[in-house]
Amino acid sequence: MNTKNKKIGKQTIKLENPPKIIATTSIVGAKEGEGPLKNYFDIILKDQGNGEKSFEQEETQMMYEAIKETIKKANLKESDIDYLFAGDLLNQLGSSSFAAREVNVPFFGLFGACSTMAESLSLAAIMMDGGFANHVIASTSSHFCAAERQFRFPLEYGSQRAETAQWTVTGSGAMLLAHEGDFPYITHITTGIVKDYDMTDPNNMGAAMAPAAVDTIYNHFKDTGRSPKDYDIIATGDLGKVGKKLTEELLLEYGYDIKGIYQDCGDLIFDSEKQNTNSGGSGCGCSAVVASGYLYKELKKRNFKRVLLISTGALMSPTTSLQGESIPGIAHAVAIEYK
Amino acid sequence: MNTKNKKIGKQTIKLENPPKIIATTSIVGAKEGEGPLKNYFDIILKDQGNGEKSFEQEETQMMYEAIKETIKKANLKESDIDYLFAGDLLNQLGSSSFAAREVNVPFFGLFGACSTMAESLSLAAIMMDGGFANHVIASTSSHFCAAERQFRFPLEYGSQRAETAQWTVTGSGAMLLAHEGDFPYITHITTGIVKDYDMTDPNNMGAAMAPAAVDTIYNHFKDTGRSPKDYDIIATGDLGKVGKKLTEELLLEYGYDIKGIYQDCGDLIFDSEKQNTNSGGSGCGCSAVVASGYLYKELKKRNFKRVLLISTGALMSPTTSLQGESIPGIAHAVAIEYK
Repeated sequence: MNTKNKKIGKQTIKLENPPKIIATTSIVGAKEGEGPLKNYFDIILKDQGNGEKSFEQEETQMMYEAIKETIKKANLKESDIDYLFAGDLLNQLGSSSFAAREVNVPFFGLFGACSTMAESLSLAAIMMDGGFANHVIASTSSHFCAAERQFRFPLEYGSQRAETAQWTVTGSGAMLLAHEGDFPYITHITTGIVKDYDMTDPNNMGAAMAPAAVDTIYNHFKDTGRSPKDYDIIATGDLGKVGKKLTEELLLEYGYDIKGIYQDCGDLIFDSEKQNTNSGGSGCGCSAVVASGYLYKELKKRNFKRVLLISTGALMSPTTSLQGESIPGIAHAVAIEYK
Repeated sequence: MNTKNKKIGKQTIKLENPPKIIATTSIVGAKEGEGPLKNYFDIILKDQGNGEKSFEQEETQMMYEAIKETIKKANLKESDIDYLFAGDLLNQLGSSSFAAREVNVPFFGLFGACSTMAESLSLAAIMMDGGFANHVIASTSSHFCAAERQFRFPLEYGSQRAETAQWTVTGSGAMLLAHEGDFPYITHITTGIVKDYDMTDPNNMGAAMAPAAVDTIYNHFKDTGRSPKDYDIIATGDLGKVGKKLTEELLLEYGYDIKGIYQDCGDLIFDSEKQNTNSGGSGCGCSAVVASGYLYKELKKRNFKRVLLISTGALMSPTTSLQGESIPGIAHAVAIEYK
């Protein structure tokens, strides 16, 4: 028999010294800055960047700015930061690696597709709770044009978009964890298991990721003994309208009714009818900017006292899709409180 | 002022409850199985796989086998494993994500290019030391043919290889950490900072990664108060002959003479003249199989009592290289003892 210290149940850690989120930054592109959450974002770019030479460099610059700005907001210096956990969607973590190059901080690169924000926040919190660090930054980014040309087609092709397709968010979010001060804090980490229900359509990632989201939320409830009524908001990463509906229905089959308190970051960030974003937003940057912007700011105002963030990732690549593979999904959950 | 618990110096953690490496598995391709370390590998494949449909599936299968075999060797069940930390070189962690799909274990995906073995081992050790888990697996893989067609050219082109080029190792290594038993244990983790000295030649990754290796080794000595004489072997990940020479020379300039105890996993794994591998081996699988095979087995025999493993990564992608970017490097170090 395993005797766990801080692990409760199969997938969840209960933090003993809940690290506080003392500062966050959300940077978004122009389109995201016209959406329903526009007042929650710290920096809205004019287009997708600030005149950098390529989409990839725009994304790198966004993440670097998000990190730099977050350190500044916390009145800290770069040398105060013990670790940086970061990831993105680009091959070989193009934007995180190059953003990390600009900061003189020990760096762990992560890839969990669009689940990376909760993955980085989980590991950052574990690092803090375990007594290995005083200040850790978690950050992710994505960029619509860089993602389109890497995962689908160059924009110049003018390809038609499926009804179930999602729109990769241009944005980067960063969160800074510390021990001191009066700020929202992380209480639980539920780490995802890869789930694959044989979905093969890369234009319907919401459906591919929904089973992973359901599994992680279900196990979070089971491990913690909590239920939907313990949360003011349960926010999945970027399932979009299609995946959100599936998640709600599947969880009901498992006996949990989350309607009323359930939102999806991909659904929240765009007005899909007016903004023509079909099923909604996606990308590592999606749950990053919604969590760093909307969720964090509403927590700070105590409009939310307990939030469950579940970033969701579709772990496919163009190669695996072309080789006929199905799309495995993963979802990581982080519980944040401010009482 | 920061008051650190377990962190000593800027980049190093001293573990209070050193987790033990209770089992490892190394699986390699046929070419690696003909090299100087052939007697240290657990499984040598006939070619690069076992008849799977694609190079990518061969790599996935190798990692899955390495994980499964390691659990079996330790007389454990999959359900005993708390976390899996894994990564590889393929876009969107193709082989790790699909290997993780086969195991019902909470999964953290990592990308640190060829530094990923030490990255995964670092985070696995931190998870153990912090009291968050009883059994954690760290694993990485790479595959010559899958890497060649993704990073360079399809093999069918028959492109000529530069003298400074390295040969991606086909292999996967896995290590299982636990608290109990009499086994080699991890004492220190030194996490790398991204270093970029404006090298732009993707056929000379050794030179691009050497400054990162030097920086991490130097800071490991500085943080711990140790020196080369405290180690029986210092093994960098995959700098190859070119990077190894540079590292030795640069560290001498910093006042540390590592000659005599310094080896490079990429240099060790092939007989480069006979096997035509130019500067030596590379890839996430390189330091993974050399550490899981050679280093671990020599530790267990107490022929090595203290080992410093420094996996080194070149954080470039074909996109960033084509866009004229230089190649940032990173190196993570893990100190392993058996006294």
